[in-house]
Amino acid sequence: MVQERLKQLCSKMEEHSIDLYFIPTSDFHGSEYVSDYFKVREFFSGFDGSAGNMLVSQKETGLWTDGRYFLQAEAQLGQTGIVLYKSGQEGVPEINDRIFSEIPEGGTLAVDGRMVSAAWADGMRKMLAGKNARLELSLDLPGEVWTGRPGIHHARAWLLDEEFTGESRQSKLGRMRRYLGEKKGSMMVLTSLDEIAWLLNIRGNDIPCNPVVLSYLIVQEKECHFFAGENIFSAYDKNELEKDGIVFHVYEEVYSFLQEISEKERVLLDKRTVNAHIVRCLPENVSVVDIVCPVIKWKSIKNPTEIKNEREAHIRDGVAVTRFICWLKQNIDKIPLTEKMAAEILEKFRQQERGYLGASFDPIAGYAEHGAIVHYSATDETNAYLTPENFLLLDTGGQYMEGTTDVTRTILLGGKATAEQKKYYTAVLRGNLNLCAAKFMYGCSGVTLDYAARQPLWDMGCDYNHGTGHGVGYLLNVHEGPNAFRYKILKEPGQNAILEEGMITSDEPGIYLEGKYGIRLENLLLCVKREKNEFGQFMGFEPLTLVPFERDAIDVEQMTEKERGQLNAYHQKVYEIISQFLSKEEQEWLVDACAPI
Amino acid sequence: MVQERLKQLCSKMEEHSIDLYFIPTSDFHGSEYVSDYFKVREFFSGFDGSAGNMLVSQKETGLWTDGRYFLQAEAQLGQTGIVLYKSGQEGVPEINDRIFSEIPEGGTLAVDGRMVSAAWADGMRKMLAGKNARLELSLDLPGEVWTGRPGIHHARAWLLDEEFTGESRQSKLGRMRRYLGEKKGSMMVLTSLDEIAWLLNIRGNDIPCNPVVLSYLIVQEKECHFFAGENIFSAYDKNELEKDGIVFHVYEEVYSFLQEISEKERVLLDKRTVNAHIVRCLPENVSVVDIVCPVIKWKSIKNPTEIKNEREAHIRDGVAVTRFICWLKQNIDKIPLTEKMAAEILEKFRQQERGYLGASFDPIAGYAEHGAIVHYSATDETNAYLTPENFLLLDTGGQYMEGTTDVTRTILLGGKATAEQKKYYTAVLRGNLNLCAAKFMYGCSGVTLDYAARQPLWDMGCDYNHGTGHGVGYLLNVHEGPNAFRYKILKEPGQNAILEEGMITSDEPGIYLEGKYGIRLENLLLCVKREKNEFGQFMGFEPLTLVPFERDAIDVEQMTEKERGQLNAYHQKVYEIISQFLSKEEQEWLVDACAPI
Repeated sequence: MVQERLKQLCSKMEEHSIDLYFIPTSDFHGSEYVSDYFKVREFFSGFDGSAGNMLVSQKETGLWTDGRYFLQAEAQLGQTGIVLYKSGQEGVPEINDRIFSEIPEGGTLAVDGRMVSAAWADGMRKMLAGKNARLELSLDLPGEVWTGRPGIHHARAWLLDEEFTGESRQSKLGRMRRYLGEKKGSMMVLTSLDEIAWLLNIRGNDIPCNPVVLSYLIVQEKECHFFAGENIFSAYDKNELEKDGIVFHVYEEVYSFLQEISEKERVLLDKRTVNAHIVRCLPENVSVVDIVCPVIKWKSIKNPTEIKNEREAHIRDGVAVTRFICWLKQNIDKIPLTEKMAAEILEKFRQQERGYLGASFDPIAGYAEHGAIVHYSATDETNAYLTPENFLLLDTGGQYMEGTTDVTRTILLGGKATAEQKKYYTAVLRGNLNLCAAKFMYGCSGVTLDYAARQPLWDMGCDYNHGTGHGVGYLLNVHEGPNAFRYKILKEPGQNAILEEGMITSDEPGIYLEGKYGIRLENLLLCVKREKNEFGQFMGFEPLTLVPFERDAIDVEQMTEKERGQLNAYHQKVYEIISQFLSKEEQEWLVDACAPI
Repeated sequence: MVQERLKQLCSKMEEHSIDLYFIPTSDFHGSEYVSDYFKVREFFSGFDGSAGNMLVSQKETGLWTDGRYFLQAEAQLGQTGIVLYKSGQEGVPEINDRIFSEIPEGGTLAVDGRMVSAAWADGMRKMLAGKNARLELSLDLPGEVWTGRPGIHHARAWLLDEEFTGESRQSKLGRMRRYLGEKKGSMMVLTSLDEIAWLLNIRGNDIPCNPVVLSYLIVQEKECHFFAGENIFSAYDKNELEKDGIVFHVYEEVYSFLQEISEKERVLLDKRTVNAHIVRCLPENVSVVDIVCPVIKWKSIKNPTEIKNEREAHIRDGVAVTRFICWLKQNIDKIPLTEKMAAEILEKFRQQERGYLGASFDPIAGYAEHGAIVHYSATDETNAYLTPENFLLLDTGGQYMEGTTDVTRTILLGGKATAEQKKYYTAVLRGNLNLCAAKFMYGCSGVTLDYAARQPLWDMGCDYNHGTGHGVGYLLNVHEGPNAFRYKILKEPGQNAILEEGMITSDEPGIYLEGKYGIRLENLLLCVKREKNEFGQFMGFEPLTLVPFERDAIDVEQMTEKERGQLNAYHQKVYEIISQFLSKEEQEWLVDACAPI
């Protein structure tokens, strides 16, 4: 089926004299998770991981994905003939290198201009110039091949009250207008869905797991043009928005709107997020100023209301996950359970919590060797039965009215861990604890602190092929910038952000032993201020996540005294806060689970 | 005197309608250490630290310097009326902010265009445009005021043989020409003195402590134009260079040479290092390509010959410093000794070593509270007597035919350290050992590893106001890029370099207690490869410096078992290698100094 589709795409390419066609994983907004309309890469490859880009030519179709998906992509590409390129592996050409080597002198690379950022297009044009080749942005050839393509979904949207956001729409728009003034801009174009949702205090349901609204936003000094599905708000909510100067437009009309703006406008936009077609639509003489969108940083710094709420959401989430682990331990040898069932049952526990809206990402429940597949998602074919031995890696999260959670625990299903399992579990745990305990001068980015999490593994010659942590939104995307923990410095402006008080970042070191098991331990960390003295302002972290670790998988000998103290203090906090929401039986279990080592 | 000079400068400024005059610490090559001709800032302020910039207006003269020099600058500025701006301190405006706030609308900022980089000038012009102000680069007003200014010194220069450099001049020039080809350049302009010295395998004596030759270099496909003092080479050496296609010119003629190049040239240069006047001299239609000079990275990666030699140089240097410490401990209560004498006597020990050419920087010998002044340099006024108590911080280094050394030890002059002294000494030592012991994935920069050195101090709410380490040249500048250990990410391209096998970086955490003492412990670390496995290529460090630490200042309780093991292994290595070059008496002392803890 995939082969037939690719054949049709290739003949369309021939028709339009296109040498290479690029299919990214994206939507018109650069979203990480995309709704069905945008699953072009999956349609043409069968690979349904969350990250992957395709390059199609008459000669070869290649798919690039990262370390999280090597095993899954290998399995799903199967006999399609599509070549898998493992990004970041030694000797594997990056997709741009491949484009450059494959494009003929004077040739044409095509991509749907709405599916790539303006910055990507600029860089690509520059690169292609080296072979006198051109970039064609106006052809949606996959769309022509894809009959029966789902429509673009515009679900109901709603307003999030100030008791949840802590800052009014007026105040946020005021910040944006002051920014416009500072940068001498007359217009700001926003297309990232979480930025729009944050700025307008709106939430929706247009993207799986991310409670955002498929929309574009143009902020001017007086007005604010909002392009979205029709009638997505109640009359009351719409009126509220209009009172704040929001003017409603049909979603698709943003392009024609931009084509008709005055040439006197000075348009601010972030070329790294705005799609290439947006920029092409602007009249030629309009001055365009490429900025790092300030909303990225604004929304990453949670205000006191958001922090208070996040703590509350994490208590409820901690209760649900703790109850599930207790239930699982007590039922593992009593009823037949699969990976999928485990995730579903955890979902049921979460649904019992007040304010729970749904999952913040597709749950990962990887038993034994499936745990070694970093972003494993059980399918009907792979869905494994859990038996009372080995590890279950469970990475799940929830969207609550009070915030977004993301927690990973690796649960020992048998009573006794092997020496090897303990060795690796303890190393990962030490990494998690050491990063959480880091005290540092203000001015550090996550690059400075990543070492705290990796050191125990690096010392034993191991590593994990993913970042140590990502920023997390407030009832928004579970992955957001600009804060992160990673050891490599990124080149884009606005990345490698300094850690600010109020930022929430995940702390999730891991180890993955192919064919055996995977271990990942993840807490969300709130960045807080510590003492200020003659040396400057010290910073630290408060763990938001409240779920016990696996005492039976720890080799106490590996841990320093300080690390043991950290673990015991964390477990004491978990017990004190979570136990009050548990049944007697659950409480008894938690006493043991949180006992000092 | 300083006031009179500033008054004359101000009247010159009035004459030329200059609102602000900027005096950086630099020479025409962006050197860190400068020869006497270039000591303009010292002439106009009296402050003789190695870093500091001045801004002069009719209203105020300000001097900006960094944390290393706050105390020294305060003392030396004294009653001059010059305002000291402590860079990096909270609430202190950076010099550029001050320029922007002080420059009148439509005003003029002037600086000698040979004393600032082209990138600095570009940035400054952009900033000044915000106030319709201009940048004047052609006026050397301080030069007009400074009567009796020393001349530019061109000392004898010599060729460094391949047994020391490990790579011929032809090979290095070949690399540069291949680079030119890749970048489609017809001409490369080099002005950094250590880059020129490395590329041509020449050394000289034009800058204190840095064995470089005051010169400019223009590399073309066939020729290589070298602008330097006349007759600085022997006839034989000159002939050798000419055989390799080097064409000699008078130093000052580089500007007129560049004014007359063909407009067809495509000139590669690094705007961050080349001075602004160089770029102004180029004919208008010449295409200029701003690149990060590849020599910076090439010279930072020491080849096997250089590594072999550096190990040898560090053994000799270790012998000298170890013998000195032994001597000092045995004579501290016998003869009156000052800070300056201590540095002089250490210099005598170094002079006994084969291949020693001189100091690689001005020695820092800071006794007791002087140790808290990061880059203290004893003057006749401050030169303190050493007594058998408290710490002597000794940061010195040598230039050997076989490489450049830089070592800091903090020596306990009394027999017994206080609990507080032990607490801090141990924290600094742990930082030094932990960074040295770091094992990490290839791809890390020094930003990722800085935390290893700072953690023990940060944990106790302390810090040091300087980087943890800098790159070190091979018989070249003791401070070189692009490798470094620091916790903040820098913005310039080419900084934050990935640590490569063969790079040498200092590891020098410290603590400075104003009015009490300073502790700094510095070893040079060679970056080496560790195992390569399924996770990738691991990297680590080998300490080149071989000098014992101060056992009597250690609080063993603070150290983990692993850290104790590291210290004992290091001391064992020091003993095994160094003891064979010592007298019986010195050996006996070293046995104790290196005994396991």
